[in-house]
Amino acid sequence: MTDETRAAAAEVVPLRWAGDHLAPPAHPPLPAEERWLATPHPQPRPGARRRLAGRGAPAIGVAAAYGVALALAGGEGEAEADFAAAHDLLLATRPTAVNLRWALERQRALVARRAGAPRAELFALLVAEARAIEAEDREACRAMGRFGAALFGPGERLLTHCNAGALATAGYGTAVGVIRAAHEAGKVERVWVDETRPLLQGARLTAWELGRLGIPHRLVTDASVGALMARGLVTGVVVGADRIAANGDAANKIGTYTVAVLAARHGVPFYVAAPRSTIDPRIASGAEIPIEERDGAEVTHLGGRRIAADGTEGFNLAFDVTPAGLIAAVVTEAGVLRPPYGEAIAAALSAG
Amino acid sequence: MTDETRAAAAEVVPLRWAGDHLAPPAHPPLPAEERWLATPHPQPRPGARRRLAGRGAPAIGVAAAYGVALALAGGEGEAEADFAAAHDLLLATRPTAVNLRWALERQRALVARRAGAPRAELFALLVAEARAIEAEDREACRAMGRFGAALFGPGERLLTHCNAGALATAGYGTAVGVIRAAHEAGKVERVWVDETRPLLQGARLTAWELGRLGIPHRLVTDASVGALMARGLVTGVVVGADRIAANGDAANKIGTYTVAVLAARHGVPFYVAAPRSTIDPRIASGAEIPIEERDGAEVTHLGGRRIAADGTEGFNLAFDVTPAGLIAAVVTEAGVLRPPYGEAIAAALSAG
Repeated sequence: MTDETRAAAAEVVPLRWAGDHLAPPAHPPLPAEERWLATPHPQPRPGARRRLAGRGAPAIGVAAAYGVALALAGGEGEAEADFAAAHDLLLATRPTAVNLRWALERQRALVARRAGAPRAELFALLVAEARAIEAEDREACRAMGRFGAALFGPGERLLTHCNAGALATAGYGTAVGVIRAAHEAGKVERVWVDETRPLLQGARLTAWELGRLGIPHRLVTDASVGALMARGLVTGVVVGADRIAANGDAANKIGTYTVAVLAARHGVPFYVAAPRSTIDPRIASGAEIPIEERDGAEVTHLGGRRIAADGTEGFNLAFDVTPAGLIAAVVTEAGVLRPPYGEAIAAALSAG
Repeated sequence: MTDETRAAAAEVVPLRWAGDHLAPPAHPPLPAEERWLATPHPQPRPGARRRLAGRGAPAIGVAAAYGVALALAGGEGEAEADFAAAHDLLLATRPTAVNLRWALERQRALVARRAGAPRAELFALLVAEARAIEAEDREACRAMGRFGAALFGPGERLLTHCNAGALATAGYGTAVGVIRAAHEAGKVERVWVDETRPLLQGARLTAWELGRLGIPHRLVTDASVGALMARGLVTGVVVGADRIAANGDAANKIGTYTVAVLAARHGVPFYVAAPRSTIDPRIASGAEIPIEERDGAEVTHLGGRRIAADGTEGFNLAFDVTPAGLIAAVVTEAGVLRPPYGEAIAAALSAG
């Protein structure tokens, strides 16, 4: 069994298109509290997405592309009106990840090009476009892996925060994809996985993915990163992103900025891996990225059980912004972007 | 009811000497998984301390002073041998907090001064000395509160990490004591409480203490600190310490160093509050402070339940070291020490 076939056999995806609905993937369910929300009824599930049932910027984009297609499955209403309603509903579910808007705009452009087409034809076209978005994202992740792996030398001890893996994309992963490709190239000695409170995406998802891939890893609390770096135990950081501004500032899961500040202090290169669909050229800097504030109960409770003192309220920002100046490179499917990011990003986006 | 009487009525302590044993305190039990380990049998409880049943550097010192006294309660063996055995047993329980060694050495010096005294007399003297250590620590905390409160202006939004409160000392607290005194002086708008994974001392203990004291606070994940500071929501940081080297480097709960690095980046003053018994003049720098590595299961599990993916192992450093250069001031019972710390610490220790 080659590395390639082994990797394919273990392929992890966050969702699967089953012809007329989104279905659970074929691999075993995830550990602990992860549940798969099948969509047996061909309807968009904005409520599910509001609860972060969908997560990971690229995966949210793919799910939205399918979701907006499902609005035209069956039914007899006016196709463009139904599409517009689903589009707006989905667009409002999550403020930070720009891939959502990117995917919906791509579907909207398709509908505009085929204005007046029969409902069933539009549905088929939208599903085909969603499948294309999904396939392109998976291919983009593999390209990021190839470009990203070249950044590293032997014996790397790479740290990642949250889950930017196969479960956050159409498959393979952005940051985890880079780590995976570097590991396949024999360059990774160990991966440090931040647990990523409050929702523990690192402990639950990234650790699970790395375990399946046979990549040596250890789990640490988010507050351990400074001590690890001070001891020289981290040689590089790779994270994903939810939105990257035109100047290279990058929003990602809360805690990413803290890791970037520590990396800068210790001379550890800090890399962001994200497809170009994560770049938002309409905003000049990270100050314009809307940051989702989530329920404080995610901090005071875990698994439905209170873990904080009674009466205490949590404050729960879901994302933070890492300024471009702390980012050594942005790995995209179009290549590795280096500062100054304004020019590099503009060139990558116009590369088509 | 004045602030002073209200504070006294709500006084929180980690332990209580009940004449012949250490007993639970009089106030209600702590939230969630906290349990009080009474010591109905007059024996040292090194096993309990090994499990971090005792915590908080000053409280560990006080408990050790009583614990080594209890070795001479009852029994008929050779007093000095029993004392030495208990001394060595207790000294080996926790490597990082130097208050343990400090308190045990103070008791050992007492035994040396009274060499040959009857066992019952030594026991009484050791208990009296433990009571003195306890009373001095409580008074030291109040002095730190007075000195520390003077560092702040109105409307402060102070952040603290872990629990350096009444439950970590003989009462009143070091870092929380400073915050409490600043609050009584009308200077505190809000306190940010880091939850402090893995054992959640911030979420369980500090939040509980602040709630009892009526000090406005909000709980955040440890990874949120960077985002809070980037938004200008933190005006100062106050933490405790487990050991301070002769040059001012300070060991404290894992994650403290990360907070200090972020504070430096954002120009937020970072203060350490600790009694002089936390200073270890025998070591030149923080590089010599032994750091306890604890069971990785504290990271992979919470409350006995696995929260990480199956098969994943945790790496669990209990403390980290903040270099003196990141510390704006060290608040002690002998006054506020400023850089250069070498001279300031030497002067404070010789002030008697």
